[in-house]
Amino acid sequence: MPFPIDIPAVADEALARQVTARWDSLTKPPGSLGRLESLVAQLALATGNARPSVSRKALVVFCADHGVTDEGVSAYPKAVTRQMLLNFLAGGAAINVLCRQFGIETLVVDAGVDGEPVPGAVDLRLGPGTANFVQGPAMSIAQAEEALNNGLMLAQRLSGACDIAAVGEMGIGNTTAASALFCAYSGTAPEAAVGPGTGVNSEGVRRKAEVVRLALERHRGVTEPTAILAALGGFEIATMAGFLLGAAANRLPVVVDGFIASAAALAAHAINPAVLPYLLFSHVSAETAHRRLLETLGVRPILDLDMRLGEGSGAAMAMPVLDGAVALYENMATFAEGGVSNAL
Amino acid sequence: MPFPIDIPAVADEALARQVTARWDSLTKPPGSLGRLESLVAQLALATGNARPSVSRKALVVFCADHGVTDEGVSAYPKAVTRQMLLNFLAGGAAINVLCRQFGIETLVVDAGVDGEPVPGAVDLRLGPGTANFVQGPAMSIAQAEEALNNGLMLAQRLSGACDIAAVGEMGIGNTTAASALFCAYSGTAPEAAVGPGTGVNSEGVRRKAEVVRLALERHRGVTEPTAILAALGGFEIATMAGFLLGAAANRLPVVVDGFIASAAALAAHAINPAVLPYLLFSHVSAETAHRRLLETLGVRPILDLDMRLGEGSGAAMAMPVLDGAVALYENMATFAEGGVSNAL
Repeated sequence: MPFPIDIPAVADEALARQVTARWDSLTKPPGSLGRLESLVAQLALATGNARPSVSRKALVVFCADHGVTDEGVSAYPKAVTRQMLLNFLAGGAAINVLCRQFGIETLVVDAGVDGEPVPGAVDLRLGPGTANFVQGPAMSIAQAEEALNNGLMLAQRLSGACDIAAVGEMGIGNTTAASALFCAYSGTAPEAAVGPGTGVNSEGVRRKAEVVRLALERHRGVTEPTAILAALGGFEIATMAGFLLGAAANRLPVVVDGFIASAAALAAHAINPAVLPYLLFSHVSAETAHRRLLETLGVRPILDLDMRLGEGSGAAMAMPVLDGAVALYENMATFAEGGVSNAL
Repeated sequence: MPFPIDIPAVADEALARQVTARWDSLTKPPGSLGRLESLVAQLALATGNARPSVSRKALVVFCADHGVTDEGVSAYPKAVTRQMLLNFLAGGAAINVLCRQFGIETLVVDAGVDGEPVPGAVDLRLGPGTANFVQGPAMSIAQAEEALNNGLMLAQRLSGACDIAAVGEMGIGNTTAASALFCAYSGTAPEAAVGPGTGVNSEGVRRKAEVVRLALERHRGVTEPTAILAALGGFEIATMAGFLLGAAANRLPVVVDGFIASAAALAAHAINPAVLPYLLFSHVSAETAHRRLLETLGVRPILDLDMRLGEGSGAAMAMPVLDGAVALYENMATFAEGGVSNAL
C-alpha cells in the first residue's frame, strides 16, 4: 500500500525571505498587492523556486457515477454524468470554454462512469460507479487504494509537463458523497454538511441530510482515512485525493475547485496533512457547506463568485489571478529602475 | 453647467428575460455560474445588447496631487505622485503589467500633478494640485465643474473605441480626500471612514481621522453634491466622477477600482443616481472603510484579495472574470447541441 506517501516539507525561511525581498523591491507600498503577494510566496515554497512559473497549466476533470443516486439525492438522472463526459470531450462544456480562454490544457479522466469506456477519456475506471453507501461501502478498500494510486501516478506523469495543475469533477450524486466524507472526517453534523448541489429543493436537501445520517450510522465504526474514503467516497473523489497527494510528492501546486474537490482535499489531508501547503483553494462555492469545509481545513479561497457548477470551473477562473500575480512579481519595475522614492 | 446629465435607465424586462433564457439553454444547471451570470446580465442591460462584448478594454489612471498632504497624512512624499506617473508612462508599474497581461489599453490622465505637464499623459490639468481642504475648499466650484466636464468628454470619446472601461488613480494623500468625501456624502463618522492608505501606522490613521473631522467642520454648511466634491475632493477624483457619469450617459460599462475610485462613484451617484447600474465594482480593498463605502452604495465587489495599491490594479484584475463570463455565455454548448438531458 503506497499511502501515506512521502511529501516534502515546504518550510524554508531563506526562500520566504527572498520572495518578500523581491516583492518589497518593486514600485508599490510593501504588502499592497495583498493576496497576490502571498499566493506567489505559496507557489515559491511549494515548488522550492524563488521565481515560480504558472505558464504551463493543466486541469483534470475526474468523472464517475454514484450508487447513492438510488436514494433520489440528485435533481438530474445518473445518465447525465456520461452525457457531460461526452460534452467535455466535444469541447462544449463550461470547463472547456474557460480552459480555452485561460490557456489551460484539459484532461478528462473516467474513474468509473456507468456504461462502456468512452474513447478520448483517460481510462482509470474502477467499475461502472460506486455501490449505494447507505447499504454498504461505496467501494472496497482495495479499490480505494487503487484509485489513490491511479491519481498518484497521473500526478507524477503531469508534474514534468506543467507548472501548475487544477482539479475538478463530474458525477451525478457526488455532492452527497462529499457531504458524507466531510461529516466523517470532521465530525460535522449532516444538516450542516449538505446543500442543494446542482439544484434540489429544500425537501431534497432534507433528504440528502437523512441519507448522509443513515450512511454515517451504517459506517460508524470506520475511522482509518482510506477506509472512510472507501466507505463513503466516489471513484472520482478517491482518484482526485490520490492526485493531490501525488502532486504534493512531486512539488506540483494544485488549484482545487469547489465542494467536492475540497472534500477530496480533506481526504488527502486526513491521509497525509503535509499535502495542504501544495493546494490553492480557488473559490468558495454557493454550496452551503463549502465555506465550513474550507474553515475546517483552515484555508482561504481566492474567489467568491457564488459558482456551484463543478467541472473545475472555479479552479479555471482562479488561474488568471495567479497569472496576474506572477506577472507582477516578474515584470514590475523596482524602485531603482522606476526612479521612485521608497519612503518606507 | 452640464450636471446632472441625462443617463438612460437600464430597466428592460424583455432584455433581462432574453439573457436568462440564453444562460438557461447552456449545458449547466440553471444559475450554477452564479455571479458570472449576473455580471453578463448587468453588461447586457447597461449596453442594451443581449450579446455584450468585453473584447476592447481601456483603463484610465487619473493622477493628481493633494494640498492635504501638508497635514502629514501620507507615508510617502508628494513627489511620488509625479514619479509614479512617469513610471506608468514608462510601463513599469503594477497597472502596466496587469494591463499587458489582460489585454487592456492604458490611458494616463494628468488631472493636476505638482510641477510641469508631463509629455505622454493626457493633459486635463486643473492646476498643480488641490488646496489643503482643512484651510478652505480643495478647489473652486468652477474647477469641480470643469473636472466633471473633462471626465465626461473623455468618456464620450472612449465610448466609441471600447466595450468596457475601468478607472483607477494615483495621488499621494487621496485616501484622506476619499475618506472626507465618504463622510460628507453618507454621514459616516471620520473614525469609520479612514484607514492606513498606502501604509501609515495607527498614529497616522488617528491623524487622518482628525484631519477629516477638521475638514468636515470647516465645510459643514456644504450640501450640494458638486460643492461637496469641490470642498473635499481631488482633481483626479472629480475628473473620474465626471468620467463615470459620461460613460453611463454613453452606455459604456465601467469597472471601478478600490476605495478612492469608489469615492468618485459615490460622488457621481450623489450627482445622478442613475449612474449606478453602469458600474461594476472590481474588488473590496484592504482599506478599512472600503467595505462600508460599498455597502453604502448597496453594491457587491467581484474580488476580495486584500489589495490596496490603487492605480486601477483591482479593476484590471477583475477583467479576466468578465472575459470568462462572456466567453461562457457565448461559447458553451446548449443542451440540444451537447446532447445533455435538461432535467430541470
